[in-house]
Amino acid sequence: MSAGDRSDLSRGPRCPLPIADHPTVLLAHGGGGRLSRMLLDRVFLEAFRNPILETLHDGALLDLGDARVVVSTDSFVIRPLFFPGGDIGSLAVHGTVNDVAMCGAKPVGLCAGFILEEGLPMETLWQIACSMQEAAREVGASIVTGDTKVVDRGKGDGVFINTTGLGVLLPGADVSPLRARAGDVVLVNGSLGLHGVAVMSIREGLEFETALESDSAPLCDLVRCILERAGNGIHVLRDPTRGGVASALNEIAAQARVGIRLDERGLPIREEVRGACEILGLDPLYVANEGKCLAIVARERADEVLETLHAHPLGDEAAIIGEVVDEHPGRVVLRTRIGGTRFVDMLSGDPLPRIC
Amino acid sequence: MSAGDRSDLSRGPRCPLPIADHPTVLLAHGGGGRLSRMLLDRVFLEAFRNPILETLHDGALLDLGDARVVVSTDSFVIRPLFFPGGDIGSLAVHGTVNDVAMCGAKPVGLCAGFILEEGLPMETLWQIACSMQEAAREVGASIVTGDTKVVDRGKGDGVFINTTGLGVLLPGADVSPLRARAGDVVLVNGSLGLHGVAVMSIREGLEFETALESDSAPLCDLVRCILERAGNGIHVLRDPTRGGVASALNEIAAQARVGIRLDERGLPIREEVRGACEILGLDPLYVANEGKCLAIVARERADEVLETLHAHPLGDEAAIIGEVVDEHPGRVVLRTRIGGTRFVDMLSGDPLPRIC
Repeated sequence: MSAGDRSDLSRGPRCPLPIADHPTVLLAHGGGGRLSRMLLDRVFLEAFRNPILETLHDGALLDLGDARVVVSTDSFVIRPLFFPGGDIGSLAVHGTVNDVAMCGAKPVGLCAGFILEEGLPMETLWQIACSMQEAAREVGASIVTGDTKVVDRGKGDGVFINTTGLGVLLPGADVSPLRARAGDVVLVNGSLGLHGVAVMSIREGLEFETALESDSAPLCDLVRCILERAGNGIHVLRDPTRGGVASALNEIAAQARVGIRLDERGLPIREEVRGACEILGLDPLYVANEGKCLAIVARERADEVLETLHAHPLGDEAAIIGEVVDEHPGRVVLRTRIGGTRFVDMLSGDPLPRIC
Repeated sequence: MSAGDRSDLSRGPRCPLPIADHPTVLLAHGGGGRLSRMLLDRVFLEAFRNPILETLHDGALLDLGDARVVVSTDSFVIRPLFFPGGDIGSLAVHGTVNDVAMCGAKPVGLCAGFILEEGLPMETLWQIACSMQEAAREVGASIVTGDTKVVDRGKGDGVFINTTGLGVLLPGADVSPLRARAGDVVLVNGSLGLHGVAVMSIREGLEFETALESDSAPLCDLVRCILERAGNGIHVLRDPTRGGVASALNEIAAQARVGIRLDERGLPIREEVRGACEILGLDPLYVANEGKCLAIVARERADEVLETLHAHPLGDEAAIIGEVVDEHPGRVVLRTRIGGTRFVDMLSGDPLPRIC
């Protein structure tokens, strides 16, 4: 970095993060686990402190004049740009419309910001733009505004995309991580780990007997269906992307000050994902998904929700995977196949960099 | 790029841009001039085609339930991160709140997406976050949601920031590039070229006798004041950032199918900016501003608007710089000091890469 890149350290308060431990940004600060959480808490929340940001949902609920608008933003830096089951364009739409959906809202408009590296083939950009349009069209949202910047060769990596989604709350929706309470049931709409394993496999040049494809998909319609069926019996929705199911549930447990107990026998994980995870040295509970939704629902509505999920094209492998408990508030435990229990902590480190 | 980065060219239609001329992305595709416009027209508008996007405003006006919401997005890749008069954090807020203001709206909420390069000093990130917060606080907007990604060393450049701004229309606002009509008067709130020249000077290691500072500033309050005074007599608002006044006015002229005539004697350009531009080989009309607003107003309201601008802290050097005419629709001409005229075209090439 040049001299001009250095801040004038005499200005303002010093960074509250204990920078003796982490004086520079590490890949793991972007991994969705413990270090991501520390960066969020100690830098961004500390600097930007305000009540809306502090709800720590997948998006924000904002009062704009007479309307309540849901907004969510995400940058996509996945490598490689094209992978089995999608590309950075479809992912950038799915990731953001899913975050809007996880707030109980229907996505209406999308903003797209592109950071292109000098030398990117124009044909590649065109394919990505077409994928975005197709993914947006599928959920009935429009890409309403955008921006393009170009950085010099070697200062980017092909293309990075930021998408921001705007949506309106669905009727009856009242979802928030704070609504998880003891007795609730934890469901997921299908098998875990497909996105991360598919991307890592192609990146590492591994070939498996069964071709693994990313599960990247828009969850808006599925969320609409379960909210229509169970209304405010749906307490929490969360898509387990970076950091996987383990990190997502740890965040919810910490926010709601409840415990969550998973049952290993109930976890829908395909054999080929288990096999790939063994080869790659990954735990499927920490692997990113892009078409999966965790739903924490009132116990008395769980069967209806499961039935509704099973009837949906994106929910045929849906399962009840655990429950919310009074014990060990803030933590997630797994009841193993052989009857023992172990704590499932947040991801620490980042075995899957640039997965989204 | 690895094999996975290549698109499957057999999918979908081919890129409509004449890629024989530009098979890859050039820095100038991000410069705000002719090639940026071509990329927008032939790739993004072609792929995303929809009526809201096609208004080609600085932001989009979106119907969300009962509300009309203004939304604008921008990515910031400026080099260096800290420059005289600001840094990437303050710029990322000013740039986006100004785009919202140019739609005649008051910014309410901001989303922030960070793409960090592994190795960025944590203290630098903290300073940038504090600058963002200070800039947002100044305009009464909150940073309501965000996202952080980390890319490996050498695949980014310190930090890139995407900001998306949401706002509500100000009472009486009816601004659109399509409202420019012959007879209207073109005003600007102050002297031109400061941001670009300040950044280029430090980047090139040049020193001038007078220290030049970026004009980066939030224009929300200034826009509120002139809209309060002249209401729908304000026809068009535009901040002349990348590509400068010349490119901004060319875009408006093309959209409204009108001519615009500038008077060189009326252009507020400081002597030190002229001098720096001569050394740097730049034309001040093409240099980026970050605290300037072009207002195209009904002739009968021009004096009131000028008076209002002069009374505002960000408008003391405001001036009438030209008029909208019937002649040469789609083009901008400059009446020179010596009485001649010359066409002022869109920026072609990009003499000022990564200026915002």
